[in-house]
Amino acid sequence: MKNLSIITILALFLGSTSFAGNGDEAASGKQYIEFSRIGNPAEVLDIKYEKAQPLGAGDIRVEVLAAPINPSDLLQIAGKYGVDPVLPYRPGSEGVGRVLEVSAEVKHIAVGQLVLLASGGTWTEEIVAPATGFLPLPNLGPVNATMIEQLAMSAVNPLTALLMLNSFTDLEEGQWIVQSAANSAVGGYVIQLAKQRGIKTVNVVRREGLAEDLMAKGADVVLIDGPDLAAQIALATDNAPIALALDPVGGKTFTRLADSLGYGGTLVAYGVLSGQPASVNTGKVIFNDISLRGFWLYKWYQTADMKTKQAAFGQIIPLIAQGVLKANVDSRFSIDQIEEAVSRAAAPGRNGKVLIVPNAL
Amino acid sequence: MKNLSIITILALFLGSTSFAGNGDEAASGKQYIEFSRIGNPAEVLDIKYEKAQPLGAGDIRVEVLAAPINPSDLLQIAGKYGVDPVLPYRPGSEGVGRVLEVSAEVKHIAVGQLVLLASGGTWTEEIVAPATGFLPLPNLGPVNATMIEQLAMSAVNPLTALLMLNSFTDLEEGQWIVQSAANSAVGGYVIQLAKQRGIKTVNVVRREGLAEDLMAKGADVVLIDGPDLAAQIALATDNAPIALALDPVGGKTFTRLADSLGYGGTLVAYGVLSGQPASVNTGKVIFNDISLRGFWLYKWYQTADMKTKQAAFGQIIPLIAQGVLKANVDSRFSIDQIEEAVSRAAAPGRNGKVLIVPNAL
Repeated sequence: MKNLSIITILALFLGSTSFAGNGDEAASGKQYIEFSRIGNPAEVLDIKYEKAQPLGAGDIRVEVLAAPINPSDLLQIAGKYGVDPVLPYRPGSEGVGRVLEVSAEVKHIAVGQLVLLASGGTWTEEIVAPATGFLPLPNLGPVNATMIEQLAMSAVNPLTALLMLNSFTDLEEGQWIVQSAANSAVGGYVIQLAKQRGIKTVNVVRREGLAEDLMAKGADVVLIDGPDLAAQIALATDNAPIALALDPVGGKTFTRLADSLGYGGTLVAYGVLSGQPASVNTGKVIFNDISLRGFWLYKWYQTADMKTKQAAFGQIIPLIAQGVLKANVDSRFSIDQIEEAVSRAAAPGRNGKVLIVPNAL
Repeated sequence: MKNLSIITILALFLGSTSFAGNGDEAASGKQYIEFSRIGNPAEVLDIKYEKAQPLGAGDIRVEVLAAPINPSDLLQIAGKYGVDPVLPYRPGSEGVGRVLEVSAEVKHIAVGQLVLLASGGTWTEEIVAPATGFLPLPNLGPVNATMIEQLAMSAVNPLTALLMLNSFTDLEEGQWIVQSAANSAVGGYVIQLAKQRGIKTVNVVRREGLAEDLMAKGADVVLIDGPDLAAQIALATDNAPIALALDPVGGKTFTRLADSLGYGGTLVAYGVLSGQPASVNTGKVIFNDISLRGFWLYKWYQTADMKTKQAAFGQIIPLIAQGVLKANVDSRFSIDQIEEAVSRAAAPGRNGKVLIVPNAL
């Protein structure tokens, strides 16, 4: 048995093509989602079927239990992501499953064990692929449906939150950070991880009614975005120097967050929900020693070494298992409800993640 | 005698108030420039006179030979700099002088020696100040008027060029960088320092007729700024990944330089000549892992340690003395021509630095 930790296979993660077969059978067999052209996710996704695949040497068979619809999935289907999918493509970048069958060569994964799905194409009933395409979870004790859903979301959003908090600036207990779209899944994880470390968070959202949920997660301040955002932040933090700002919105929000930073502060873009370019006062960048950066988890999976990846998952998985890290779930859909599911995931005003649940939990 | 290198005193540099007296005598004595209100440099600068100051313990008397008008001087007078001057204020941030007299306590500086002026207020005939306010130059052999002028410009622009090339990204021989306003003094030093290291430069200017001078300095490519700048750069460099871009212009030029960077590239703003904010495509920042940074020499002088400063000057001064590093001189003015001098320094279409030459070279 090879001694490689299968965490390494997460390098294959996100954007990798599925290992499963290419069947296009009649409406029988195992259901999966595929798209053959770039476009509106609600229009281009096909519900397909294939016969249960036989196991090859080193393969395992995994029943998919839950897989989220992430913004990056929708961007990729729409052709707005940093890498283009090779068509036809099976979407879905993460999820959790239970092992149904293992080939004789596989000794480190047992039937019945829970695994994270790391070979892509997770919006499917079943995956047959080399065991290296899965991350076996440690024994977490009794695991209920809620925990399975939370584990299904562990490889993208919590990791994004963790890495953005750790990679750009040294944050000390009591320091303030700011984030926009704080009611997103990443935003919730940022609040929870920051709280754990005693870092204070200003959480910017675009509508009323979200403060209670965010305060319950551990938010220190919740503000509504607007032209006076930098002044609001200064007031709420008693003019504390803001060391780090995290922004998936772009446009005016990015500009306002840049204006709110303290001397030497860093603003990290990790999405462009507004679809707008941002205006930057480069004079402030110079005199205030501001750094404007970007974060893309896909590249981290491509470039981080095994030890780094193990360390990151080693922090995330126990926190999810302990219930310290969790995200809201908005709704659950079966595979044949995919059109409804992606429409819901793209709808404004949601307050939680949309999950694909192919097999009842 | 104290064993402190007086290079350390450069920390006092730029923006420090002059040590000289506050006389406001009749039109006799030593001439100097002062301003008592923020505004247009051509309007607010006063030509003043004071009696020759007596030497205090540890002081030296220095005859100012040449002092440049830097863009940062004009910005400070106009109230557009990162720190406000305490009024009344004597402008002039660097220059070179010859020692006329030393107090008994000063053993490491001799009468007749050339020194860099590091205590501010350099647009003056004579400075009397503690010896720590000067950087004595090593024996450079015979020094003619041209060399004196070049040495007068050594503490601001060449250092800016050196630090921007060294501080943000590791550049290897054969790599490409891009800079705007390449015909500025900093631009010329960037070309010369890059050439020395085998780094290739794309030099962006805003008008025709500058290529010959820049190519003579060592430029590899000279381009005229325009909406197609990123495409021009890609064509001229055969799509080489641009690792570093340096920009004192801001606005559309900043945006175009950001668009020209290769994966992981860094764009450093060090001025805002356009006065315009820049539009930034944060999606590109994310997917292309772009870093947007600022550089401000004033802060470097405030924060760098002695060893770092010594190392920087240890690189710059010999290169100037060897004639490897040099800047064009546009024109020379006496102190009583200050209005004309600052008007010339602010005029477009110049191709060199404006110098104050209080005493004939």
